[in-house]
Amino acid sequence: MRRKHTQPVFIGGVQVGGGAPVVVQSMTNTDTRDVRKTVRQVRRLARAGCEIVRVAVPDEEAAQALRAIRKAGRLPLIADIHFQHGLALAAIHQGVDAIRINPGNLARDKIRRIAKAAGEAGIPIRIGINAGSLEKDLLSKHGGPHASALVESALRHIDVLRQAGFDAIKVSLKSSDVLTTLAAYREMSARSDCPLHLGVTEAGTEVQAAVKSSLGIGMLLAEGIGDTIRVSATGDPVREMPIAYGILRALGIRRRGVEIISCPTCGRCEIDLMTLSTRMEKALAGCTTPLKVALMGCVVNGPGEAAEADVGIAGGRGFGFLFRKGKVIRKVPEAEFVAVLLTEIDALASRGCA
Amino acid sequence: MRRKHTQPVFIGGVQVGGGAPVVVQSMTNTDTRDVRKTVRQVRRLARAGCEIVRVAVPDEEAAQALRAIRKAGRLPLIADIHFQHGLALAAIHQGVDAIRINPGNLARDKIRRIAKAAGEAGIPIRIGINAGSLEKDLLSKHGGPHASALVESALRHIDVLRQAGFDAIKVSLKSSDVLTTLAAYREMSARSDCPLHLGVTEAGTEVQAAVKSSLGIGMLLAEGIGDTIRVSATGDPVREMPIAYGILRALGIRRRGVEIISCPTCGRCEIDLMTLSTRMEKALAGCTTPLKVALMGCVVNGPGEAAEADVGIAGGRGFGFLFRKGKVIRKVPEAEFVAVLLTEIDALASRGCA
Repeated sequence: MRRKHTQPVFIGGVQVGGGAPVVVQSMTNTDTRDVRKTVRQVRRLARAGCEIVRVAVPDEEAAQALRAIRKAGRLPLIADIHFQHGLALAAIHQGVDAIRINPGNLARDKIRRIAKAAGEAGIPIRIGINAGSLEKDLLSKHGGPHASALVESALRHIDVLRQAGFDAIKVSLKSSDVLTTLAAYREMSARSDCPLHLGVTEAGTEVQAAVKSSLGIGMLLAEGIGDTIRVSATGDPVREMPIAYGILRALGIRRRGVEIISCPTCGRCEIDLMTLSTRMEKALAGCTTPLKVALMGCVVNGPGEAAEADVGIAGGRGFGFLFRKGKVIRKVPEAEFVAVLLTEIDALASRGCA
Repeated sequence: MRRKHTQPVFIGGVQVGGGAPVVVQSMTNTDTRDVRKTVRQVRRLARAGCEIVRVAVPDEEAAQALRAIRKAGRLPLIADIHFQHGLALAAIHQGVDAIRINPGNLARDKIRRIAKAAGEAGIPIRIGINAGSLEKDLLSKHGGPHASALVESALRHIDVLRQAGFDAIKVSLKSSDVLTTLAAYREMSARSDCPLHLGVTEAGTEVQAAVKSSLGIGMLLAEGIGDTIRVSATGDPVREMPIAYGILRALGIRRRGVEIISCPTCGRCEIDLMTLSTRMEKALAGCTTPLKVALMGCVVNGPGEAAEADVGIAGGRGFGFLFRKGKVIRKVPEAEFVAVLLTEIDALASRGCA
């Protein structure tokens, strides 16, 4: 699939846009002032595939914690700033790799001062437009937080930054509404070559967030739009990673970790597939090698689908047939499914999974 | 959005295709021979929004249970047949509302006999193509279970049915691969006016199934393709319903039940939003009235987003502001969030939710 060309920016060592692979990012939900807790979450995010992490900077104490978090967390760090431009300046002083501002919450002269400091530090700024905090004049001009209002707000603030001589700009246009999200990014992509950070905000808890993010992020990626993505789900941000990589994998954009193909089960299913799937999912959560593992409840579609997978089980009554790259290896008792599959996967995975 | 025109079929009282609303269906995973258990699951599915239900018919005893399941379950019933055409005939005799055949598993003369019986009973047939059980000649012609092979198999069997004078045909083209699914349905939609049943098969456990189904089903719906949908997730089929309606709601196609907008939480969050979201989600699972409820962790984006919602809470430190249709009502202590919101929602919901 052809991706829309954008001007690259660099966040720490990570290129965003300009033909780079789509970057997966997240945001901590710990108290930023608590360095130990925040670093622990950053490391868990990194292990789960997060490549850039953002932290909220609500006050001066949080800003002062950034250097330590960045050093110990070992991921490029973005400081998230809403109201006080002084916190952006403090964050830049602490050596963060990028600043995210919500320009709806900052006066223009303050934005210019942030641009000056970021320019001197050589780090990019994300203009993070949010439907929940648009400028009042745009809300009344466009009749509400519609796509066109989000885009006009972004273009306006790109201008503010460019007039201040600042060019390393990334843009997001977030709404909790999927159709608004799609329309806004499509228009933005047509009107600007800034790299785009995709996301649907306030998407809800895990399953609903997976639905809204898959649609809002995935449909744009499928059109070649988007340079970095963030799945928002209420709860532990580590759980965003399987959703993010699930979207990228399903669209053939990036592959990371094991894809489990498991049937929905029906009245024909004679093995405990739900337990098997859940156990395999847990056991393989840390595996980064792209592999396809099939767990099939019966012989109807099992062998056919398992033949497409790197390794698979097609279950019968208390036993199953183990497949490897399309070839039946042997019959396995149900009690040994997990152990046998993990041994197979470990042999296939370059860095080891089981 | 304009929907692709298809020839309608009728499953019990439910129209599929021909301009009807997109129908949500599912499949039981109980032992079909166990009438009580199956009926209980059918009723749970119906309460959760399922409009048509399919059951596996692996043997004669399962076929004989269909009349009782249909009567007590009170949902249009589709019998799922794979290998034995005799089971299809028995199911039709039991009064089912439609038959699903996997033609890869049935000889042509047997398919003709099913068509004759279905025609006499006045019920439709779904040609359910599955990448896992394609005809061998098509696999070798197309070099694997690719989109074009799925479409050719479907067109071939539409011909078999039409030559037998049978016309009430619905088609599905299932693969566990999202890109194959998209390509197959797009080609099918361009080449046929049969109503299409959308789904990604063997999609995995709940969250990954939500990702793959949102992409595979949602992108097609957004293009106007698809007349009925089935989300496949390993486990309790009732959990497919929030995913199905989540997709339809996000795309503005159908609205059912409460949409919870909750922020991902960050270092600024001062209330226990995860617990609040989970409790609200559970309490509102049975509500069918389309409402938008916002649960926001802080004052930064909270008031703006909550203003878009029918009702919402924007949390501070141990308290929150209750909003109703954009207007602040009052300050509420955190301990009373759930009770206060449920009272508000109950007043807004036509049939009562709390």
